Amino acid sequence: MYELYYWPTIQGRGEFVRLLLEDVGADYVDVIRRPKEDGGGGDALRILINTTRHFAPPILRDANITISQTPIIMDYLGTKHQLTPANEDARREALRLSMLLADFLVEAHDVHHPLAKELYYEDQLDEALRRSLSFRDVRIPKFYSHLEEMISANGGYLVEGGLSHADFSLFQIVEGMRYAFPKSSARLESDRPRLVALHAEIAARPNIQAYIISDRRIPFNKNGIFRYYPELDG
Amino acid sequence: MYELYYWPTIQGRGEFVRLLLEDVGADYVDVIRRPKEDGGGGDALRILINTTRHFAPPILRDANITISQTPIIMDYLGTKHQLTPANEDARREALRLSMLLADFLVEAHDVHHPLAKELYYEDQLDEALRRSLSFRDVRIPKFYSHLEEMISANGGYLVEGGLSHADFSLFQIVEGMRYAFPKSSARLESDRPRLVALHAEIAARPNIQAYIISDRRIPFNKNGIFRYYPELDG
Repeated sequence: MYELYYWPTIQGRGEFVRLLLEDVGADYVDVIRRPKEDGGGGDALRILINTTRHFAPPILRDANITISQTPIIMDYLGTKHQLTPANEDARREALRLSMLLADFLVEAHDVHHPLAKELYYEDQLDEALRRSLSFRDVRIPKFYSHLEEMISANGGYLVEGGLSHADFSLFQIVEGMRYAFPKSSARLESDRPRLVALHAEIAARPNIQAYIISDRRIPFNKNGIFRYYPELDG
Repeated sequence: MYELYYWPTIQGRGEFVRLLLEDVGADYVDVIRRPKEDGGGGDALRILINTTRHFAPPILRDANITISQTPIIMDYLGTKHQLTPANEDARREALRLSMLLADFLVEAHDVHHPLAKELYYEDQLDEALRRSLSFRDVRIPKFYSHLEEMISANGGYLVEGGLSHADFSLFQIVEGMRYAFPKSSARLESDRPRLVALHAEIAARPNIQAYIISDRRIPFNKNGIFRYYPELDG
């Protein structure tokens, strides 16, 4: 049984891991979301970090192995559940794309928090407005075009050889972008059909379908990494 | 023989790879820095990206293998040159720390460019000043404390079992921080003796010493990721 440690009220980076665990039907506990009396809550995270010296969640525990950094967790879980390519070049490609999507996630966060994580959005609103222009006009197109090109080159998936863990990360990025930047997403998806199709294929997988409508899926909200502020979209 | 593709006028992310190549005495070409008539220049990068579909430099070519994302390059080179731990848990830890240092590098960049890469520093100076407070008071201490703790727990190196590629990345981060944030570095290093000692140990390695004083080492400058703006330090 796996133990996932991640912030209990947002999708955030933990959601990439949750999606993979759900798809493969893994037996896992979302530890911090459990009641304190069942070993959950923030204390559980503090104890884990103090004993294993990880920097930040998500942290995955598998018996005596603990892993952090989302792409490394995805590579690890994918290897165990046939979603990491066995071929070493393709394995590195899946990891590369997982890291690229993690880089994109940082930029999607920093749009609404360009100055400091500790400050409120309202205290950096003007700066967020300025950063959103660059994000929408330069950054999203650059990333989306690269993803579309990869999917086109690899027969409908990000990496040669078929479905991999990176495709689940792509699904989550598209989900988050549709929530936080609906207008930009509609515009940019219109001429990137393969990206849209791959998102739809992941969404249609039975375990993903069941998960999305379950109460295990935390709704997007204004504490997460993807946040919907209409003034930043366009 | 390796081929490294990276921007020719800055240390940037390419420097992590250069340091490792230099330390192991690898035969390599810094392709874009070569004259155009010898296959160098920006055209060489464009051709490589068009044919291999990588997102951004640094890109390492080793015969028919091409790799991007700095931590993946470090893991790959480390494996070939005995600087990636053979033990799988320790290998993942070295990769995790390499990724953590890459995350820190993004923050060190965004201090002087909080709004957009495409804008000049002077056009986001006020925002940079505000972001620098958080970077100095919250972010650097958080990262540096974690690194100090890891070195303390692992006998003088970041990862259990001795020297690894992650230690070279740490060296470069400390170098960059001393250049860009000399006052903050002096203050924060004063009670992190293990981090200072590990940096010094890497600096004293013969091949690194020779490299640092060679003209292959591009000096820090105001086009790089680490930039010295006195108003952002303190």
